[in-house]
Amino acid sequence: MEEEKILLSHGSGGKLSYQLIRDLFLSNFENNFLNRLDDGAILKFKDLNIAYSTDSYTVDPLFFQGGNIGDLAVHGTVNDLAMCGACPLYLTCAFIIEEGLPKKILEKIVFSMKEASENAGVKIVTGDTKVVNKGAADKIFINTSGIGIVKKGINISGRNARIGDIIITNGSIGDHGITILSEREGLEFKTSLQSDTAPLASLVADMLEVSDKVHVLRDPTRGGLSTTLNEIADSSGVEIEIDEDKIPIKEGVRAACEILGYDPLYLANEGKLIAFVSPEDSEKILKKMKNHQFGKESKVIGRVVQKSKGRVYLNTKIGGKRIVDMLTGEQLPRIC
Amino acid sequence: MEEEKILLSHGSGGKLSYQLIRDLFLSNFENNFLNRLDDGAILKFKDLNIAYSTDSYTVDPLFFQGGNIGDLAVHGTVNDLAMCGACPLYLTCAFIIEEGLPKKILEKIVFSMKEASENAGVKIVTGDTKVVNKGAADKIFINTSGIGIVKKGINISGRNARIGDIIITNGSIGDHGITILSEREGLEFKTSLQSDTAPLASLVADMLEVSDKVHVLRDPTRGGLSTTLNEIADSSGVEIEIDEDKIPIKEGVRAACEILGYDPLYLANEGKLIAFVSPEDSEKILKKMKNHQFGKESKVIGRVVQKSKGRVYLNTKIGGKRIVDMLTGEQLPRIC
Repeated sequence: MEEEKILLSHGSGGKLSYQLIRDLFLSNFENNFLNRLDDGAILKFKDLNIAYSTDSYTVDPLFFQGGNIGDLAVHGTVNDLAMCGACPLYLTCAFIIEEGLPKKILEKIVFSMKEASENAGVKIVTGDTKVVNKGAADKIFINTSGIGIVKKGINISGRNARIGDIIITNGSIGDHGITILSEREGLEFKTSLQSDTAPLASLVADMLEVSDKVHVLRDPTRGGLSTTLNEIADSSGVEIEIDEDKIPIKEGVRAACEILGYDPLYLANEGKLIAFVSPEDSEKILKKMKNHQFGKESKVIGRVVQKSKGRVYLNTKIGGKRIVDMLTGEQLPRIC
Repeated sequence: MEEEKILLSHGSGGKLSYQLIRDLFLSNFENNFLNRLDDGAILKFKDLNIAYSTDSYTVDPLFFQGGNIGDLAVHGTVNDLAMCGACPLYLTCAFIIEEGLPKKILEKIVFSMKEASENAGVKIVTGDTKVVNKGAADKIFINTSGIGIVKKGINISGRNARIGDIIITNGSIGDHGITILSEREGLEFKTSLQSDTAPLASLVADMLEVSDKVHVLRDPTRGGLSTTLNEIADSSGVEIEIDEDKIPIKEGVRAACEILGYDPLYLANEGKLIAFVSPEDSEKILKKMKNHQFGKESKVIGRVVQKSKGRVYLNTKIGGKRIVDMLTGEQLPRIC
């Protein structure tokens, strides 16, 4: 029998990632924090609720239109905390560097992290640096973990989607995925595209300020919008419906996807969120989002229709309806 | 002018690491938490003091006598929290895996992490998995971050060494470093050696139970005993004196060092701590330590003699006295 190996798809954020997490990590590390499968854990200390999250960043190339591995590493963890409804406060930062990396590359990355953390209102409070022999890593990998405070009464989780919930996104999807792909392949249309990498904590704070009926928040990174919606449908046991003609996709992204054969629904985003909110508050939440610099293009893209085993349907532009599954296989390794 | 590059020595835990941290990270990320240069940051939330730490593990080979990268990753972060005087509670765990890693290797590592975290009394509450293309990383790297609670009244820092303080270690030095080196080189004497990797939080809890006069705790990992003592001497502005004939070194480690030309004072340890304690409490702390499974071989190895710019002296066996500096260059890359 052939030995089973770890594949790129185990890190895609799609179906195989989900299986690996369930079969290996959850079964061994089992505890109530991990079992929620949210972007971070919520820890309780007396009357204090702390959100806690981690992510490693291995993006290739290190620098791309709209950002680099440094600000991505800050924004990514800030966003994971924000998706727990937390106000992010402190980050850790751990570098694994390949011997021979030009020092000025590291300096540029660190400077971006400084700026990104200042903009996001977080402090990098502790860190670690490992250097490995040439060839044992590709240039630089960064891990950030972060902690933030969840205010009393806030309970946001992928398990909380309810029938009738309105699904909102804060803007166009696929920008990050197509930008990285274009940079990597040296494609022509790259000039018109840039990554959407951005810190979303203050947008989330605005949303929570006007409503206590935000049920789910998730950032559709690896695996894209489709995978994220499937995870939520699965965790909450609901059926979700999204409308193809409502989903904002930039012309350049759409064109690149057509040429290259990618589906924007599966492309990674680094400055987007998906919110499930009560219908009675959806209008005021949407209005508040549109007033935020990272929410100007916010739109309702779908709704929760009924209880189910976790299905996501797309109402197509031509009037059809099709099931949208989690990402299977791997579209773009090292996208973040 | 030749371009400056990141060298293995920047990750050695020695002099160049220290310079990189001061010149690049502290100058950019400057804040009161980071500036302490302790093994973790101490965060204050109302009346709650939380210790927060991170480390990445890149050890080669993955499995060695006495442990593997998995338990090392748990113990390492548990120990960093313990060195802040904290009771470790929660860990994050982030994997960067090279495509093609046999799944059973990952399973073995995860199982070790499960056991190690249970033994250390911590929970792994959130995580991340990235898979990179073959050749972009060497098998697997693990990052753990951790948080723990620091009880009221406890104030342990590398800045707190005082004149007269007694320096205690909990056992022999160099075991981990020589074990990894032997495994890597396939040397003969490896059978008699094993890594000292162990969780030290309960040993620290015992020490803090009998005394409130523990001033400094530090685990001498990369860079070894000498580098750790130099960091403390520098942070506290004191002169330290250690006695060569008191420093416990196993016969096998000593022999290997002689053959290979290594100085045990610079070898990494993964289950050892250095404590600076008030002379009036040193006896009872030592007694308590000797009753703990990881403290049986505890010994006084030196003392703080006077204020200075941060010097460490070794009283040699033959009656001489020499300055012991930080590690310069790199002894063993990927030791942890």
